[in-house]
Amino acid sequence: MKDLKRITVIGLGLLGGSIVLAVSRIWPGVQITGYTHRRNTRRKAKRLLTVAQIADNINKSVSDADLVILAAPIRSFEEIFRTISSSLRRGCIVTDVGSTKLLPHQWAAKYLPKGVHYAGSHPIAGSEQRGVEFARDDLFEKALCILTKTKNTPNASVQALKRFWSSLGCCVKIMGPTEHDRVFANISHLPHITAAALINASRTKELKFAGKGFIDTSRVASGPANIWTDVLATNAKNSVKGIDRIITELEKLRGAINSADKKKIKRLLEAARNKRAALIKYKMKREEIIS
Amino acid sequence: MKDLKRITVIGLGLLGGSIVLAVSRIWPGVQITGYTHRRNTRRKAKRLLTVAQIADNINKSVSDADLVILAAPIRSFEEIFRTISSSLRRGCIVTDVGSTKLLPHQWAAKYLPKGVHYAGSHPIAGSEQRGVEFARDDLFEKALCILTKTKNTPNASVQALKRFWSSLGCCVKIMGPTEHDRVFANISHLPHITAAALINASRTKELKFAGKGFIDTSRVASGPANIWTDVLATNAKNSVKGIDRIITELEKLRGAINSADKKKIKRLLEAARNKRAALIKYKMKREEIIS
Repeated sequence: MKDLKRITVIGLGLLGGSIVLAVSRIWPGVQITGYTHRRNTRRKAKRLLTVAQIADNINKSVSDADLVILAAPIRSFEEIFRTISSSLRRGCIVTDVGSTKLLPHQWAAKYLPKGVHYAGSHPIAGSEQRGVEFARDDLFEKALCILTKTKNTPNASVQALKRFWSSLGCCVKIMGPTEHDRVFANISHLPHITAAALINASRTKELKFAGKGFIDTSRVASGPANIWTDVLATNAKNSVKGIDRIITELEKLRGAINSADKKKIKRLLEAARNKRAALIKYKMKREEIIS
Repeated sequence: MKDLKRITVIGLGLLGGSIVLAVSRIWPGVQITGYTHRRNTRRKAKRLLTVAQIADNINKSVSDADLVILAAPIRSFEEIFRTISSSLRRGCIVTDVGSTKLLPHQWAAKYLPKGVHYAGSHPIAGSEQRGVEFARDDLFEKALCILTKTKNTPNASVQALKRFWSSLGCCVKIMGPTEHDRVFANISHLPHITAAALINASRTKELKFAGKGFIDTSRVASGPANIWTDVLATNAKNSVKGIDRIITELEKLRGAINSADKKKIKRLLEAARNKRAALIKYKMKREEIIS
């Protein structure tokens, strides 16, 4: 990474911590700085991320960076962009790892100075776990990473970010923030929403009989509520449209069951089964999942 | 198992095959007979379940049995009860492994002769896989098994079945078929329904971006469509009520997202997260799941 010699990660949770560990494993020569506004997390980070300099001041942490990566909650991005704006050096690339991309692009356009280039990143990695204590230097291996750009994003910045995430093991795809937010409302936010609805609709005293099916179907709902609140709130229109589509599908099944239309029930279940079989086949072929 | 020396399993899929393998491992002395109406499956069973006699005639297969276990699809139960009724010896216990219990109890009451005792079984084991080729002699270990009985079920039969499933490694709970069907609509059928709705609501071209969250949340929808059609059709009222509750929860989230009410979104997500955390804690304490 000739062009990215100094990297600063803002936010040191599972993703931020894992970026630090992965970068230092893959390019031992890169200078990596970590910042978080939480004193307690800084203390933990100094112990767990010994490969990075842990900074106490956000402006100093970014002042000589070639690449700044926001790995904090999305709700803090606007304030972070505003804060660091005057400290970024010309030519610096700024990105983030938030799960929605349209608002970060808008905030970046509003706050970042000319000569600093923003593109969005969304590495599809992580789990329902959170915190720097779960950080791993191989979290991004074989993960998909979406880069988002607009017509104003310089191609050189996008290509530098593409090399960055690729070297961490990601398979990189590039799209616009609007497309990104539509796609991920459907394939990432909706599973969270249905999992949460499934649990909230359940009766506590009946849950003791839950088997592996219930436990797997509801897993993602154990993700951090504040992060997911941000995600849904910053991608509201697409999320609402997705919920409407889910309700439509539930009503189809409801109608078929209510009228004892076994053919229709079977057709709906078979359609889901076949669609998932095609998905699994695709993912296995690309070695994104192992049988 | 002094009182169950001859056991017949009707239906040789994942569950039926696994019962055969588990019984013969645990009580090598028991005479175990398997029957399926499919010639092709009988051929496979003769190769894979060498510990059992594979019968070609259903009536002969049950004629000297102390215990008959229906492990065929629920839709075939009524016909099987009718068919075997005249061949069962007095004192024989009949059970099944279907996922709904109210209709099997009604069919048993209608077709089985006096002196033959039916109680329902629902071992919570299996996966989205199907077929005798996936049968395993440890499928029931640490699995929950619900036994269902009515006021007419002799206690001795229930206790014999309880010993049977316990010896296969199950943790046995006893309840009425009405309670069973209500509970399992909620904790077993609803995950299937939401998983199927999630997939059916998704766009094929967007699915290539699906991550582990989508894949886990949708896993159960890969279960066999015909079996699940039976399950939903034989537990229609409870399933419909469950769908209504899920839709209500989805609408709560939809309303909160649509009105940008971050507090409410967070409250709903937090409630789901906490409820699931309590569930996982309970299941881990009982060693039903491992961290």
